Amino acid sequence: MAKEITPRSEDYSQWYLDIVQKARLADNSPVRGCMVIKPHGFSIWERMRDALDAMFKETGHVNAYFPLFIPKSFLSKEAAHVEGFAKECAVVTHYRLMNDPNGGGVIVDPDAKLEEELIVRPTSETIIWNTYRDWIKSYRDLPLLINQWANVVRWEMRTRPFLRTTEFLWQEGHTAHATSEEAVAETLTILDLYAQFAEEWMAMPVIKGIKSANERFAGAEETYCIEALMQDGKALQAGTSHYLGQNFAKAFEVQFLNKENKQEFVYATSWGVSTRLIGGLIMTHSDDEGLIIPPKLANIQVVIIPIPKPSPELTQAADKIAAALKAKGVRVKIDNDDQNRPGFKFAEYEMIGIPVRLGLGQRDLAANQVEVARRDNKTKENVPLDGIADYIANLLEEIQQNLFDRAKAHRDEHITKADNWDDFVNVLENKGGFVYAHWDGTTETELEIKEKTKATIRCIPLGWEEEEGACILTGKKSGRRVLFAKAY
Amino acid sequence: MAKEITPRSEDYSQWYLDIVQKARLADNSPVRGCMVIKPHGFSIWERMRDALDAMFKETGHVNAYFPLFIPKSFLSKEAAHVEGFAKECAVVTHYRLMNDPNGGGVIVDPDAKLEEELIVRPTSETIIWNTYRDWIKSYRDLPLLINQWANVVRWEMRTRPFLRTTEFLWQEGHTAHATSEEAVAETLTILDLYAQFAEEWMAMPVIKGIKSANERFAGAEETYCIEALMQDGKALQAGTSHYLGQNFAKAFEVQFLNKENKQEFVYATSWGVSTRLIGGLIMTHSDDEGLIIPPKLANIQVVIIPIPKPSPELTQAADKIAAALKAKGVRVKIDNDDQNRPGFKFAEYEMIGIPVRLGLGQRDLAANQVEVARRDNKTKENVPLDGIADYIANLLEEIQQNLFDRAKAHRDEHITKADNWDDFVNVLENKGGFVYAHWDGTTETELEIKEKTKATIRCIPLGWEEEEGACILTGKKSGRRVLFAKAY
Repeated sequence: MAKEITPRSEDYSQWYLDIVQKARLADNSPVRGCMVIKPHGFSIWERMRDALDAMFKETGHVNAYFPLFIPKSFLSKEAAHVEGFAKECAVVTHYRLMNDPNGGGVIVDPDAKLEEELIVRPTSETIIWNTYRDWIKSYRDLPLLINQWANVVRWEMRTRPFLRTTEFLWQEGHTAHATSEEAVAETLTILDLYAQFAEEWMAMPVIKGIKSANERFAGAEETYCIEALMQDGKALQAGTSHYLGQNFAKAFEVQFLNKENKQEFVYATSWGVSTRLIGGLIMTHSDDEGLIIPPKLANIQVVIIPIPKPSPELTQAADKIAAALKAKGVRVKIDNDDQNRPGFKFAEYEMIGIPVRLGLGQRDLAANQVEVARRDNKTKENVPLDGIADYIANLLEEIQQNLFDRAKAHRDEHITKADNWDDFVNVLENKGGFVYAHWDGTTETELEIKEKTKATIRCIPLGWEEEEGACILTGKKSGRRVLFAKAY
Repeated sequence: MAKEITPRSEDYSQWYLDIVQKARLADNSPVRGCMVIKPHGFSIWERMRDALDAMFKETGHVNAYFPLFIPKSFLSKEAAHVEGFAKECAVVTHYRLMNDPNGGGVIVDPDAKLEEELIVRPTSETIIWNTYRDWIKSYRDLPLLINQWANVVRWEMRTRPFLRTTEFLWQEGHTAHATSEEAVAETLTILDLYAQFAEEWMAMPVIKGIKSANERFAGAEETYCIEALMQDGKALQAGTSHYLGQNFAKAFEVQFLNKENKQEFVYATSWGVSTRLIGGLIMTHSDDEGLIIPPKLANIQVVIIPIPKPSPELTQAADKIAAALKAKGVRVKIDNDDQNRPGFKFAEYEMIGIPVRLGLGQRDLAANQVEVARRDNKTKENVPLDGIADYIANLLEEIQQNLFDRAKAHRDEHITKADNWDDFVNVLENKGGFVYAHWDGTTETELEIKEKTKATIRCIPLGWEEEEGACILTGKKSGRRVLFAKAY
């Protein structure tokens, strides 16, 4: 009955693809590396977006919209940006089609060639800073706290739904400030906001940290990140917040008259999270029966299933329960389909990750109770119908917390200190997860470790105790440990 | 003090551009025909989007997301679609940049040419129906009621902010049905929904109607529309809802097993409104002092200005008023800026269209009153502070209604019957607005009228009385009048 999902133990990668497909999150598309986000998957993204958007607005940000296309020459203006940023971009060269004179459908009109090619935005720093030049004249125009929800395109060679796709949806914040201190403070405000969102909404514990110079965003002075740990022991970068210094202001000549009446270059930040978070959500919580959605992000939190099938009496009772739940703000669906049997429906709702299932039969009604099944730990119990709405509202909070606690326990178990190379390699190969080890601070060593083990420095965690030691690879002096892991 | 706006009487077209710029709605961008939607403009779009999105969801629709790119060959699959649809599209031909070996920044990597060019979606029927083939197998999969919020690109030759831009934001609904009747009913449900949105949220009266064959969407069996009238007497198509019959299902081979266990092609609709609506909003309500936003779409509905400048006492009083207004759900801002004088602020808030302004001075406080200024009709009055929140909440509704009534009176005055060619031309040339006249039903006549007068058939209005007569141009028999107008 249940569609089969490859067990994680057998093939984790295939398990992930099975979940994406069978929980109806996304489909492949005929365009290489681009996915179709299906309604169920998109409903999760909508709730993520709305929660983040409210948090951005509470912290004084406003939304705007900048063009999809960037003139090719803009990309060259910030030297480190163009050097470091992947050049795999979609390039628009023509602006018209025509009927094929040989009858072969449509062809590109060779006469409609653009003078300067346009790049489909891989990120919008360049076009936005080109615009800010006109918007910022004085310290009174600052800070400028703007966010954009948009699609971006990076021509990735190896793609996986949500985790790495050619086109993806994201938000990108681009702020401008009068001082370096303010810009750094903004970068950290957003980092905290991202961490709070990941933990409170996605129930996904994250570590806040700083990227090594090698992993820094192209054009940034400092890149902060939140790092999560997936069930298979690989890390996932879940969001980044960049302090850009004056680099883009200088590249696009954005100066302001400061309080001392002098022209000064503006300080910048940029920050983003994307539909990649849905990949992180899947790999943080889900199991071999399917997707698990934390209640706060579930479009349907509770499904009521009449057993063995809808009847006027059961439907009436279900309506009454649903009304009581809705009054508590619970999102509820009654499954009145009379074609499929309960067992089929149970498997289906487990597959798509609905947090709570209520099974309501004639005998339950007679006993004034209902069977409550939790998706997170698969437990069931009979619960009195009196006070059921309060019970469910509390249960949803409990499930949200349980998912977080479970993920955090797994994550914490997978932060391992290593003090010599053999241990380091052993942890990476066998246990997985983060390895907390000393590093001599050089890019050279970082790259050598990556080459030998495929592990990268995920971050230098913020606020963790500092401790002197010797680099895991070179034995050179190290002022603090950093977190290594293999990563998505 | 006030930035100058060209009066409508002097140059309507320049007045429009001045409003867009000076009310901070949008900026031009370095990409030809693409605009930057500024935060103030985008806040209006966000409220439009949220209101529409809620209406779509209430009527059973869900959101999804389909790729930005469409393989070129897809466009040729539906013959009428490719024939009738403008071929001005952005074409992606390459997927990588490289450093110019001659040091001239970045160039397109000639080795990274796509095998098949990709079109940046001008609309998504083709890629969506290609996807629906996999999603629809049986009548039990129907209806499929999907909407997408997206950016689209049409390489327009003449652009104007919001009204016609190369890239624009819109929603596009794409639904699939088991019967023609259901699909037609869906088309009309959406038409009604659009009309309701335009009238209740935008305070913009619209006429619902059917497009002539010549104005029909490429690939549709029937195109329904809502048509609004701008202050200069030109019509604006504000939304369209298309019944597509089985055309796209046949082109993309989307069949379902019907209740009689037979394979049948699916029936389709598509429908959309776009950021063009903001252009319509501007030209329906605004005046020579600036933008006027209907209260329901205003991000700030009320601004409180301490006069002549903020003081502890005035700020305290303003906070109290603001708290009372917020408790009623009113969106309010206190302007505590102490650099600019009240007169400057008044002009500024008039310019950006804030519906209500409260001026609060020491003498007002002593008299326990506040000066309330309406943006719509520029009246002012002193209102007691006791019960001010109720007063303002009612006033916002009154303003919303007044804007609608005023626009409707203007629209109704500009629907003129014409029964001979001279009158027809005279109305179009001198009075403007809709001309309600007989037409013989042929495309030939329609095109000749357009050539002679620049007027097009805006629609055959739904539900208006039918009446026999003689075509305004040819004198041939006509079964009913249709609405002509010059249009944006």
